[in-house]
Amino acid sequence: MESLEMGVATSQERAGVLTRAWRRLMGLPKSLMVKVAELAKKAMKLGQDDPRRVTHSVKVGCALSLVSLIYYYQPLYNSFGVSAMWAVMTVVVVFEFYVGATLSKGLNRGLATLLAGALGVGAHHLASLSGKTGEPIMLGFFVFLQATGSTFMRFFPRIKAKYDYGMLIFILTFALVSVSGFREDEILEFAHKRLSTVVIGGSTCLIVSIIVCPVWAGEDLHRLIALNMEKLANFLEGFRVEYLRESEDGDSNGDKSLFRGYKSVLGSKSTEESLANFASWEPRHGRFGFRHPWRQYLKIGASIRQCAYRIEALDGYLSTKFHAPPQVQTRLKELCAEMSMEAASALKQLSSSHKTMTVPSSATPHLEKSRIAMRALKSLLKTTSWKDVTDLLAVVHAATVTSLLIDVIDCTDKVAESVNELASLSRFKTAAERAKKHAKCDEVVLTVNELEATISPENGTPPMRPDPAPVV
Amino acid sequence: MESLEMGVATSQERAGVLTRAWRRLMGLPKSLMVKVAELAKKAMKLGQDDPRRVTHSVKVGCALSLVSLIYYYQPLYNSFGVSAMWAVMTVVVVFEFYVGATLSKGLNRGLATLLAGALGVGAHHLASLSGKTGEPIMLGFFVFLQATGSTFMRFFPRIKAKYDYGMLIFILTFALVSVSGFREDEILEFAHKRLSTVVIGGSTCLIVSIIVCPVWAGEDLHRLIALNMEKLANFLEGFRVEYLRESEDGDSNGDKSLFRGYKSVLGSKSTEESLANFASWEPRHGRFGFRHPWRQYLKIGASIRQCAYRIEALDGYLSTKFHAPPQVQTRLKELCAEMSMEAASALKQLSSSHKTMTVPSSATPHLEKSRIAMRALKSLLKTTSWKDVTDLLAVVHAATVTSLLIDVIDCTDKVAESVNELASLSRFKTAAERAKKHAKCDEVVLTVNELEATISPENGTPPMRPDPAPVV
Repeated sequence: MESLEMGVATSQERAGVLTRAWRRLMGLPKSLMVKVAELAKKAMKLGQDDPRRVTHSVKVGCALSLVSLIYYYQPLYNSFGVSAMWAVMTVVVVFEFYVGATLSKGLNRGLATLLAGALGVGAHHLASLSGKTGEPIMLGFFVFLQATGSTFMRFFPRIKAKYDYGMLIFILTFALVSVSGFREDEILEFAHKRLSTVVIGGSTCLIVSIIVCPVWAGEDLHRLIALNMEKLANFLEGFRVEYLRESEDGDSNGDKSLFRGYKSVLGSKSTEESLANFASWEPRHGRFGFRHPWRQYLKIGASIRQCAYRIEALDGYLSTKFHAPPQVQTRLKELCAEMSMEAASALKQLSSSHKTMTVPSSATPHLEKSRIAMRALKSLLKTTSWKDVTDLLAVVHAATVTSLLIDVIDCTDKVAESVNELASLSRFKTAAERAKKHAKCDEVVLTVNELEATISPENGTPPMRPDPAPVV
Repeated sequence: MESLEMGVATSQERAGVLTRAWRRLMGLPKSLMVKVAELAKKAMKLGQDDPRRVTHSVKVGCALSLVSLIYYYQPLYNSFGVSAMWAVMTVVVVFEFYVGATLSKGLNRGLATLLAGALGVGAHHLASLSGKTGEPIMLGFFVFLQATGSTFMRFFPRIKAKYDYGMLIFILTFALVSVSGFREDEILEFAHKRLSTVVIGGSTCLIVSIIVCPVWAGEDLHRLIALNMEKLANFLEGFRVEYLRESEDGDSNGDKSLFRGYKSVLGSKSTEESLANFASWEPRHGRFGFRHPWRQYLKIGASIRQCAYRIEALDGYLSTKFHAPPQVQTRLKELCAEMSMEAASALKQLSSSHKTMTVPSSATPHLEKSRIAMRALKSLLKTTSWKDVTDLLAVVHAATVTSLLIDVIDCTDKVAESVNELASLSRFKTAAERAKKHAKCDEVVLTVNELEATISPENGTPPMRPDPAPVV
């Protein structure tokens, strides 16, 4: 009986499994459609977030189609033959998102191929002197020695940072040229063809990458630094509103995630470093000269991060309450709010003058006001006798916030200092000079704005004046 | 007269320039020698810092010599011909320092070559249907479409993290195979040769990299996390000694750089992420199973960094003095010192049980003691009336230190939590289990230690017992 039941159960189970499998199979097209739709949505978002991604992809496609012309066009193919594939390979491997990265890879590849090709030909020549049996042994020895040495060289931090790719291609080309020489008689022609196809591929990349909507790493680094300062300012403003607000009526419903943007600043070091490395390879473009002090950007970035660490510590107190002895509570809060606000304004001014490459003199008054508030706070603390304080634990939080805010102001000073250094290093214009230069442009803008204002008088908000355009 | 003098002067100057140039030329060998000696010294240091760098370089040399045998050995060369260079290229490009990185690149390259080769053959077949004039146009269109699409795919964060290299090789192989087909009739053979040489090169890399002194990314990540905890602990210990020391006799001369190791923790995110990525490709090795929860390491790393941010803020107070109202000064300092010490001990215990993969129960008492000290401190602050405080500014610093220390203890709790999660995820042994397993081993060690003690009784320090060796 039991075995019969089990038999029934298993056959039922089997049927169930089959129907489920059938349903799943039928559901496949649907779930596949859903997956594809999701993917398409994600792709759309990626493209919308940064349209340069789409142009970059099209650029790669164009460059690749361009070099594959060598295959299709008879006269070109006659002179290169199978070596044409090196051109295709170079394009695929060298073409990067940033002009600087493409340049760095292209130059590294070109130079390494030239050097290693020459050395490889030399090694082949040396090895061939030692007879038919000695040749492979000598060649193997050379390849081993060169590969081992060059691989070790790649561990030197300075070489790793700038010439890692070149070293890789150096090992590769040397091995290929010297070893192929064992089989091919026309080794010079082999080396020559490889070099010229690499040069063709590399220059195609460079030309396409620079001429068609170039993406400059320097530009992005410049913007990133400005953005990071703004993120810190946003937090400080939010902190003032959320934590140091006047009314004590319960928790506010403000969206705290709005001013938590500073979190991304904490880990931005590696991005900044690679951007600065690429930028150092880039030629003069837009507002940036050939020897633009990109290293200084790393310094500014480091001081911004210092500030961000303090802000991260400050963030922990957002949910506590600001308790100070009643007789100074209002005044202390006022001063803290002022410090926070002035530091935020200073950072915003620094960010906008960094963005427009103007001497950051507009930040100075805010920095000074923040220091005045700091001094006032210090003297308030010095003179008040806190006799009525019974619960010091509550006060400790307020004291910490105060102390961290003082730290933030010190850090802001350092950020200002490093931005000022950059301003003098790369000769930022003063606001007056910039105003003069843009007087004409501004006039036109004003006229347009006035025009708008006259056309739509029902629009209550004053027409926005665009930031002075960075045309220099 | 004047012109004569000038003439003399310029000829003297010229002579001066010449002698200087001569001297510089003569000095060249010397300065070159100095440069070479410096370089050699640096290389020595690089090798001593991590001897695995030397072995890695030798391994690359061996693997490269091994695959270049295809060129030297006639029967092998007969079957592969010029395609042998793909094997050389694969070795140079795929062989990375970590086994995981080599595996990830090798598998990516192999799979991408297989897929793109098949697609390329298909595309070539499709294009050849459209006649002699239509073929290059169709091929060009396919290559453009594929390159553009795949390049865009590389922007998807998930693909970028794990399959970026595969996408690159996919674009490359597709272009090469489909375009070469225009010229070569035996396209299937081309694709087949490319695939088999890539497989030969890739497997040579893998075998050499795994068999000869393998360098596991997982091992390094495991060690890095333990080291980072230790660095935080070192700071907290140093902080107690430097800042919360009993005697107030002037500045101490302790070397503060010794416990500033935590600074490297602040920016360790990208290293941890790439190590975790490589580790996820690695097979079972040593103490780490196939599905070891490497993602959890990133969580631990994040909580360690949270702690490091607080410590960075704390570091700013090292140069200030700890001022509290006289009646609680001693007690408050004691409690802070205890908090600092217990947090440090907890972190050290966490680090060592993470290192040995033991359940971190030994950290619990320290965590509890630190919390007891924290509660005592809070109640002390609640009950004391601070009537005698006149200069609150000085007290603010002490309050901030106290508050930040409380934060550090909260963070340490979180670190402990994430290590505990890891312990349960990857089934760490308990200390008892481990002791049982190592009982035999320990006995031997003890005997050796006793032996040492009997041999050298003049050695005052007790013989060190080595950490239980992680043999599991």
